[in-house]
Amino acid sequence: MALHETTIRIRYEETDRMGVAYYSNYFVWFEVARTELFRELDLPYAELEKEGIRLMVSDARCSYKSPVTYDDTIIVKTTISKAKNASIYFRYEIHSSGKLIATGETAHVFTNKSGRPIRIPQKVGEVLTGALA
Amino acid sequence: MALHETTIRIRYEETDRMGVAYYSNYFVWFEVARTELFRELDLPYAELEKEGIRLMVSDARCSYKSPVTYDDTIIVKTTISKAKNASIYFRYEIHSSGKLIATGETAHVFTNKSGRPIRIPQKVGEVLTGALA
Amino acid sequence: MALHETTIRIRYEETDRMGVAYYSNYFVWFEVARTELFRELDLPYAELEKEGIRLMVSDARCSYKSPVTYDDTIIVKTTISKAKNASIYFRYEIHSSGKLIATGETAHVFTNKSGRPIRIPQKVGEVLTGALA
Amino acid sequence: MALHETTIRIRYEETDRMGVAYYSNYFVWFEVARTELFRELDLPYAELEKEGIRLMVSDARCSYKSPVTYDDTIIVKTTISKAKNASIYFRYEIHSSGKLIATGETAHVFTNKSGRPIRIPQKVGEVLTGALA
Repeated sequence: MALHETTIRIRYEETDRMGVAYYSNYFVWFEVARTELFRELDLPYAELEKEGIRLMVSDARCSYKSPVTYDDTIIVKTTISKAKNASIYFRYEIHSSGKLIATGETAHVFTNKSGRPIRIPQKVGEVLTGALA
Repeated sequence: MALHETTIRIRYEETDRMGVAYYSNYFVWFEVARTELFRELDLPYAELEKEGIRLMVSDARCSYKSPVTYDDTIIVKTTISKAKNASIYFRYEIHSSGKLIATGETAHVFTNKSGRPIRIPQKVGEVLTGALA
Repeated sequence: MALHETTIRIRYEETDRMGVAYYSNYFVWFEVARTELFRELDLPYAELEKEGIRLMVSDARCSYKSPVTYDDTIIVKTTISKAKNASIYFRYEIHSSGKLIATGETAHVFTNKSGRPIRIPQKVGEVLTGALA
Repeated sequence: MALHETTIRIRYEETDRMGVAYYSNYFVWFEVARTELFRELDLPYAELEKEGIRLMVSDARCSYKSPVTYDDTIIVKTTISKAKNASIYFRYEIHSSGKLIATGETAHVFTNKSGRPIRIPQKVGEVLTGALA
């Protein structure tokens, strides 16, 4: 199973006046984690984009278990849970100081530049098949 | 059923280099819509906070149907789908130019300043009961 | 002198754990104000972009006088202070509850899609000349 | 002279539909750089906050020289240019791939929790005096 761990330090900008990280930022951290997972699979997303491939998000979900705040470091553990036809699914766990902070999932569709769904490109498919094995 | 419609114009800052609004911003728009719904119910959230009440998000979800971009105006239709014990649930539909853009849900827990769950405050509960009727 | 006033309500997302709006958001509000100023001049920026025109920011500055927080409404008063060759300059004042909150300036260069500076397009120039008169 | 270098990788979220990083994010990167500079001086800002000390920004400025985009890594070089009475001044240079991307400055006022200016706390002052020497 493709598994990647990314460490992120919470920015002051990401907090809100409740004193903790604002809820939409978790989805930004998921994006940072996907970027690093793709890099580790030797499929840097910036390169895929140059080849005309896009990953459009179709669904996103997060369950918040325990808050984090400024200067905390979090570890985002990311797995590709499924990749089929035009779609790819990611699962995330965020941990901090040994505590489960949040879990999440995102689903994405491979598209061309104009946003039309395309089958997972062969090169990408082969890597993902390996990563999912 | 409590129903509120909020109109928001997409900011340049909210787009990304795919040319459309970045996915985490939908959750910010949900927040703007909640704020306006609470104001309409005569329970401005800023006032609730002054009374020591907090709404901590526990779950958030969005399904992306069609993209929006800079300068588009969206309408966020918000309903309170449930309010029970310490929890309150919102449902959202985003429309733009007569098209369904996204649907979403968030769940929140009423807490005190220290983040400890509390029963829905009576004043709030009465309004919500009316709004849900 | 071109003058435009835009009203914005501060979002929860825009606050930080100091309890007030985070400093980079003022530049987002400046952007919202520029968008509305251009619309009022009948030069919607989204239309200019369709014609291949871009406005790249070259300088940005803000002086913070008094904080604002969640649910406050601010008025951004915007003027075009100069427009010459490839460049255009904006000045901003942010007010809230009759108080001066911040002042700012931004400078921008007109470019083509590839980021190469271009003279101010004639149509735009004529409107700006009128607006600056 | 206190000098710190922080490396940051540009997030997809930080780009806009012009294809480059949106201008307000540079101020967020300045904040990340300040945080790391304070940590290196053994004055972690999160600790200062626990002691009731706040740094309120009073002025911020950025000059944009060359754009950066998603997945680029930037180096923020930060110096404390002055520290006097209640105020502290930072200068920033952003570099990427050996190119100067932007320069900036921020000024901040030391305050107590209620936002009232205070003299630079002695412990902080001593470190800064050393750092500026």
